[in-house]
Amino acid sequence: MDKSVLVRVPASTANLGPGFDSLGVALNLYNDIYMELKGSRLVIDVEGEGILNIDRDEKNLIYKAAKKVFDKLNITVSGLYIKTTNNIPTGSGLGSSASAIIGGLVAANVLTGNPLSHDDILDMASLMEGHADNVAPALNGGFNVATFDGKRTYYIKKEVDDNIRFLAFYPDRELLTSKARGVLPSMIEFRNGVFNVGRASLLTASFFSGRYDLLKFASQDMLHQVYRKEFIPEMYYVIERALDNGAYASFLSGAGPTMMVLADISIADKVKESVKKVYEDRNIKCRIYELKCDNTGAKIL
Amino acid sequence: MDKSVLVRVPASTANLGPGFDSLGVALNLYNDIYMELKGSRLVIDVEGEGILNIDRDEKNLIYKAAKKVFDKLNITVSGLYIKTTNNIPTGSGLGSSASAIIGGLVAANVLTGNPLSHDDILDMASLMEGHADNVAPALNGGFNVATFDGKRTYYIKKEVDDNIRFLAFYPDRELLTSKARGVLPSMIEFRNGVFNVGRASLLTASFFSGRYDLLKFASQDMLHQVYRKEFIPEMYYVIERALDNGAYASFLSGAGPTMMVLADISIADKVKESVKKVYEDRNIKCRIYELKCDNTGAKIL
Repeated sequence: MDKSVLVRVPASTANLGPGFDSLGVALNLYNDIYMELKGSRLVIDVEGEGILNIDRDEKNLIYKAAKKVFDKLNITVSGLYIKTTNNIPTGSGLGSSASAIIGGLVAANVLTGNPLSHDDILDMASLMEGHADNVAPALNGGFNVATFDGKRTYYIKKEVDDNIRFLAFYPDRELLTSKARGVLPSMIEFRNGVFNVGRASLLTASFFSGRYDLLKFASQDMLHQVYRKEFIPEMYYVIERALDNGAYASFLSGAGPTMMVLADISIADKVKESVKKVYEDRNIKCRIYELKCDNTGAKIL
Repeated sequence: MDKSVLVRVPASTANLGPGFDSLGVALNLYNDIYMELKGSRLVIDVEGEGILNIDRDEKNLIYKAAKKVFDKLNITVSGLYIKTTNNIPTGSGLGSSASAIIGGLVAANVLTGNPLSHDDILDMASLMEGHADNVAPALNGGFNVATFDGKRTYYIKKEVDDNIRFLAFYPDRELLTSKARGVLPSMIEFRNGVFNVGRASLLTASFFSGRYDLLKFASQDMLHQVYRKEFIPEMYYVIERALDNGAYASFLSGAGPTMMVLADISIADKVKESVKKVYEDRNIKCRIYELKCDNTGAKIL
């Protein structure tokens, strides 16, 4: 049984437009989570993203996830050292919480001799997060359809073509997922539900069959983005500019505020420059990540 | 240019539970549509299913579809003979209207020298039907994700395993699609929309990856079946019985009243006998079709 472990967990983008709470893709931007059974208390170090706002006590998400594993196995841990080296910005809509949860669960599982199965870990992660659209790709890599019924996670993974670039535009503005969720209505039009059912199904088929050309249509959404525009006023300008310049798709990444743009590698630079101007014209500072899909998922280094 | 043509068009089952107006599968039950430029008026013969209720004048759906082609090409047809030999029961939820529309369009296209593309035909068919979930599989064969935006049909096809049996239980009770649509609400709960988005996406992924074992979960629906139960009181008993006996999935076929049960060929007989009893116990006369997917679609004989 190892006394220490280092786990690398990818970022993820969820919803992909119509696939609310069920579709996500892992991205090649990582948090490294080191965990060691050591000492007589909890010590947490944070490096990189989130050093100013990530909890370093029992409220830390990596620790909370690890504790779920220890509790499930009735193991008492006297001391624990966690060091997380983060490249995923927090509160950005790029799955930093999911990476913390998966990192904590996977690391604690290794430290306890791997008693949990892959699916056990995913179910625990979905329960912590409330949905599976970030935690499934963070664990599995690739494009994931992942639906959580409150107990089990039903998922299927498909690898994504290496030539697809995922351009993430992260504006200098933090947005709490709780706030972004609070703006969603309790009732919607039947036809909007039908709209999203068709688009999300087509988007899934597009990824499975490599028909990325259909994503422009398939990434349309009537369920959540329109309500979240309130917090992301540049949303539809970004989408329009991206699609006008040949991008496959553009959508809000998770609950935002990051906007995601998918484009073939051959035009990625042109698309990036065009969309960048949307932010510049509005004096919105923004960081741009040029990513691709991580088809591997969480791995032990 | 041919003066006559014979087209064979498959039946289809739509919605598949959560995929309202967007998912469908072609089935190996066929209508044969013969069309000939002949005489100086419209003559229509009907054999087999629908002989008592299918229009034999300008209101006939095959003719209406053919006329769309002639009108689009500015062709005046002096006389037309149509003979349809039907195996698909009408008003059953097995896509008999879609087969008539596809048959009429494809036949008229052949008789005018094939000026229309495959996609032209599908777009015209979707416009006539209002949605694409039956016409797409009727034309393409296989499992189809097919979304119609009022103008174009966006679709992807995937072949279905030959070992999957589609057991159709067609009760002796006609149900107008208009009536079955009328009972649907204009507003739904947000969470039910999300529910179906996740299930329909997972169902699509299941067909694309051959993970038929996930269909039991993925075929769940909260959008339309619950409202249509009013007309199909045996619905949930059929679903429960089918799943309890190892079926992959069970759902309302289109707008009903046919119930569809998917099962592996190895247990299809057992499942059929079990579900049959649900109807017998309620004194509901019912025809049972033991079908499989037609992976070819409409073809010219």
